[in-house]
Amino acid sequence: MDENKKISSAVIRRLPRYYRYLGELLENNVTRISSKELSERMKVTASQIRQDLNNFGGFGQQGYGYNVESLYNEIAKILGIDKQHRMVIVGAGNFGSAVAKYDDFAKRGFVITSMFDKDPEKIGKTISGVKIRPMEELKDYIKMNDIDIAALMIPTEYAIDTAQILVDAGIKGIWNFAHTDLSVPEDVIVENVHLSESLMRLSYNLKNYGN
Amino acid sequence: MDENKKISSAVIRRLPRYYRYLGELLENNVTRISSKELSERMKVTASQIRQDLNNFGGFGQQGYGYNVESLYNEIAKILGIDKQHRMVIVGAGNFGSAVAKYDDFAKRGFVITSMFDKDPEKIGKTISGVKIRPMEELKDYIKMNDIDIAALMIPTEYAIDTAQILVDAGIKGIWNFAHTDLSVPEDVIVENVHLSESLMRLSYNLKNYGN
Repeated sequence: MDENKKISSAVIRRLPRYYRYLGELLENNVTRISSKELSERMKVTASQIRQDLNNFGGFGQQGYGYNVESLYNEIAKILGIDKQHRMVIVGAGNFGSAVAKYDDFAKRGFVITSMFDKDPEKIGKTISGVKIRPMEELKDYIKMNDIDIAALMIPTEYAIDTAQILVDAGIKGIWNFAHTDLSVPEDVIVENVHLSESLMRLSYNLKNYGN
Repeated sequence: MDENKKISSAVIRRLPRYYRYLGELLENNVTRISSKELSERMKVTASQIRQDLNNFGGFGQQGYGYNVESLYNEIAKILGIDKQHRMVIVGAGNFGSAVAKYDDFAKRGFVITSMFDKDPEKIGKTISGVKIRPMEELKDYIKMNDIDIAALMIPTEYAIDTAQILVDAGIKGIWNFAHTDLSVPEDVIVENVHLSESLMRLSYNLKNYGN
């Protein structure tokens, strides 16, 4: 494909879902699939699938369908998950520990190399083989260990100051679970996971479209 | 406001963020705010704010601004969080336990009444005062305890069968953390939290817009 071709953000939002379905097909040793079959599985129209996947050209062929593995690998490349990301978890609380213990992230190339906490009781312990270091070491650790992503999993009141430490250390991306907006330079990417907001959307939809 | 007025889904997506900012203002005893001040805090244009909030009429007045408390309460009503939701957590693993321990959800009216697990070691124990019951009791518990939301926090391979149990029990909403699409009747609302997909979006943005 043309590397410089601009892909719409709506397509990008749908890519991880294609990636998941293609991964499941691969696991079941399916080597090719038509847009019609894929559309039935994914419950989107075949024309939507054709339009979306045409952005990555060359994988769909009339009468053949898609080569599952090629398309899977191509989407991985576009998502930037064909290479490893090195990630630290800031905050070894309940959610931080749950993320450390969840091995699916490593399978997708997000390797957790260390955790950080300010609680002396936790420092030095390991969770699923990941060592908890003191917050004072966070900045140098990021600089010296080629870390590109920090998962920010600390209470809201500390999140903004800690994000500043991450930025000063040269972090590239922040996976923000703190329930606040972070103010960072434009080239530092923030992906928010606001669980409370997710519950509020569920509540809204229950009220308006529920049974 | 006109109860039947249709509010666009883009506005709805932004509502929890307005709600959060208004809540912070209330905590700081701010009783009114202009769209200009609010826009500076939220880093969106004042005109966007006026347009969005005009959907809920009557709260913005020329030369006065918004009455923070009225607007906060009105948004809560629209989101359906002015009333309590009764929620169970299905799966007392790492993420399920983290959600049970996180008290912010209860503050917003999402009351966790019970957890369910199939592990005999966990059954009977409590996490943050919430009792873990056997999966066999899930269906009857939901029916008899006026539960409207189930947080589905079990491995993907069990998620689809368990969702069916929830549907049979008459659940209204599923907060789905399992990395799979659930097939449920149209009037059962599913809100997905796909953490892996969130990381993939972060990866994509790092690759394309990062430093």
